[in-house]
Amino acid sequence: MGKTASVSPFAPKSVPRLPAINGVRFATAEAGIRYKGRTDLMVAVLDEGTTAAGVLTQSKTASAPVLWCRKSLKSGTARVLVVNSGNANAFTGQRGRDAVALTAKYAAKAAKCAERAVYIASTGVIGEPLDAEKFAHLLDGLAARAEPDRFEAAARAIMTTDTYPKLVTRKARLGGVDVTLNGFCKGAGMIAPDMATMLCFMFTDAAIPSVVLQSLVAEHAKTTFNCMTVDGDTSTSDTCLLFATGAAAKRGQRSVSRMGPALAEFSQALHDMMRELAIMVAKDGEGLSKFVTFEVGGAKTWAAARKIALACANSPILKTAIAGEDPNWGRVVMAIGKSGEAANRDRLTIWFGEHCVARDGERAAEYVEKTVAGYMKNREITIRIDVGVGKASATVWTCDLTHEYVSINADYRS
Amino acid sequence: MGKTASVSPFAPKSVPRLPAINGVRFATAEAGIRYKGRTDLMVAVLDEGTTAAGVLTQSKTASAPVLWCRKSLKSGTARVLVVNSGNANAFTGQRGRDAVALTAKYAAKAAKCAERAVYIASTGVIGEPLDAEKFAHLLDGLAARAEPDRFEAAARAIMTTDTYPKLVTRKARLGGVDVTLNGFCKGAGMIAPDMATMLCFMFTDAAIPSVVLQSLVAEHAKTTFNCMTVDGDTSTSDTCLLFATGAAAKRGQRSVSRMGPALAEFSQALHDMMRELAIMVAKDGEGLSKFVTFEVGGAKTWAAARKIALACANSPILKTAIAGEDPNWGRVVMAIGKSGEAANRDRLTIWFGEHCVARDGERAAEYVEKTVAGYMKNREITIRIDVGVGKASATVWTCDLTHEYVSINADYRS
Repeated sequence: MGKTASVSPFAPKSVPRLPAINGVRFATAEAGIRYKGRTDLMVAVLDEGTTAAGVLTQSKTASAPVLWCRKSLKSGTARVLVVNSGNANAFTGQRGRDAVALTAKYAAKAAKCAERAVYIASTGVIGEPLDAEKFAHLLDGLAARAEPDRFEAAARAIMTTDTYPKLVTRKARLGGVDVTLNGFCKGAGMIAPDMATMLCFMFTDAAIPSVVLQSLVAEHAKTTFNCMTVDGDTSTSDTCLLFATGAAAKRGQRSVSRMGPALAEFSQALHDMMRELAIMVAKDGEGLSKFVTFEVGGAKTWAAARKIALACANSPILKTAIAGEDPNWGRVVMAIGKSGEAANRDRLTIWFGEHCVARDGERAAEYVEKTVAGYMKNREITIRIDVGVGKASATVWTCDLTHEYVSINADYRS
Repeated sequence: MGKTASVSPFAPKSVPRLPAINGVRFATAEAGIRYKGRTDLMVAVLDEGTTAAGVLTQSKTASAPVLWCRKSLKSGTARVLVVNSGNANAFTGQRGRDAVALTAKYAAKAAKCAERAVYIASTGVIGEPLDAEKFAHLLDGLAARAEPDRFEAAARAIMTTDTYPKLVTRKARLGGVDVTLNGFCKGAGMIAPDMATMLCFMFTDAAIPSVVLQSLVAEHAKTTFNCMTVDGDTSTSDTCLLFATGAAAKRGQRSVSRMGPALAEFSQALHDMMRELAIMVAKDGEGLSKFVTFEVGGAKTWAAARKIALACANSPILKTAIAGEDPNWGRVVMAIGKSGEAANRDRLTIWFGEHCVARDGERAAEYVEKTVAGYMKNREITIRIDVGVGKASATVWTCDLTHEYVSINADYRS
């Protein structure tokens, strides 16, 4: 088996330092919601004029904070974001809604804004009542002492089983000036985003109306977070928000009122950032020893290619074989077959890295088990598939399934 | 964690002895296809007049033997069944089809029948060419020495990672006489039947036309094998066949030409047998420590209830919690939510055994973690769910996800 470790082998040697973004300030606290000796509460204060957009879980058992954000997003504006880790406030009934209402009330007071400009996210155990009294009184002080240069601290405060904070920064030219995009997110289990990832927060100083921002986030979520999975288990709390403070307008950024070429560079930078954050989540999947990319081509549609890639990425028996460094491409064939999407069995071609293992529906003539077994010892594995029925393609990122995943999840609550 | 063992804790103390069925004879051999020192080839010879019915995998990468059986089933008759373990002959291209053709030719000669009366099934590694030359020459001798009283030997010859043979017998009154139904099947990984299970063979001396037999098998597969999963991974080789030799007609069985009340008892016995065989597969799921039943009620349709139950049964994060004896019902909420089926979050009720853990969308007032944690120490866990939107219900059987599953599948081929 590949080695697993208490820290992901893909943890960066050093955490990137994100530049400040005009109009955003952070503060964190140890509220003792569940964890001891670490931060578990994060507040982001946003300047007046900040626009907001986001995508939220499609789960039928969505958490109380998700329902709250869905309403706030309708306003298109944002002034404060409150996130806690250790408790998801999901499936907590009226008490859960009360906890959200209390948090919103205190947050609005702290940021001196309307409650509809408050965004809330919670991550952690499902079904345990969240006692917002424990931390609501802290919000006022946190808002007062929030500082711009605190992205890493903010990213650390929202972690659960993550082994490293996940931060990305990008620059883009927009409306005649340079703007910054910063984002951070968390994993690390119960990850199969269905419109967004577990929790992801992104900030920019660009001035972009919320309706345009919404189009951008929704479009890019499809090919980034929604193409990443750790265990196929969609969270009740998936939340991916983008806040645009508009500070760049003061530096002369021309206004951008609709989707179009003026947004091309910004859109590309946003896509890159979301893609990198999504990959970071897969690279910190619970208990992983390997990062795995499935590239499916030759499909009829992008949706079909994605579904086939996800069938591979969510197959326990295939993920376990990868953990065992076994080039068991028969299990790739199985996963393609079970996806239900069109594939021409007799034209299927499969590569492990550069090694073609199967061509036109049977084992490739040049296949040498020993060579491909050698490839499987790599930390990063790419499996390419051509299903032979069309021209569409999709890429999905995931990790392997190890003993460590079982250990982490067998006693998550104890 | 619950203890796992090299033999399933649900392995029966003794294998049931199945009575002979007039018109069926078995023989087995050690053909050395992959395994050493155990049988891996099984032949069932069926008397003239035997009718056949069956359901096969819906996988888009179905194996060569599955495609062969699909054609043979059109004839509605059967004279010989050949099954090998150790190699699935799936994704083997032209060579795979040639291997099936060669097997069919030799089997037809051995049983002195048309090739269309031959049924073939293979189970084991996917993608390795199957050398039928290795065993085709054995078929003649096997057919000649086949004996009626060899059900256990037949069931053992088709095992792969199964830790015990799975055999069930039932009696039913039909057309004025008693008839016998015998069946056996195998698991134990890559199990999420999509129309049938991995491999299941059933025999009866009843005289029933193949068209009626087909209706019975298809109907009962839905609520038995198709409601059972080990790991959510649908095999390329799912094959479930029922053969009726018609020997009971000689004892005076009145003919049964269509579905109706005359078949009621036989239909019930067949359903019971298929259900018990399906449960046996889940009880021998790879590496399991616990057998788990999900009973979903209050759904809009049976299909919705089944989908919700399967979402629970296939959730790695929930199955791992069960292995850890953690009553983590929040993960049940997650799985219901991700299923995409209608559920009223605020009327959801969940029981672990007799213990109500959640009622009307939040933790039940009477919930005591310690009590439910005690319940989780049982070998057999039943989780009941009421989704609060309708009156339909469904039951799905599965097992937990353990370290042993990872170990078994990380080096299955090595």
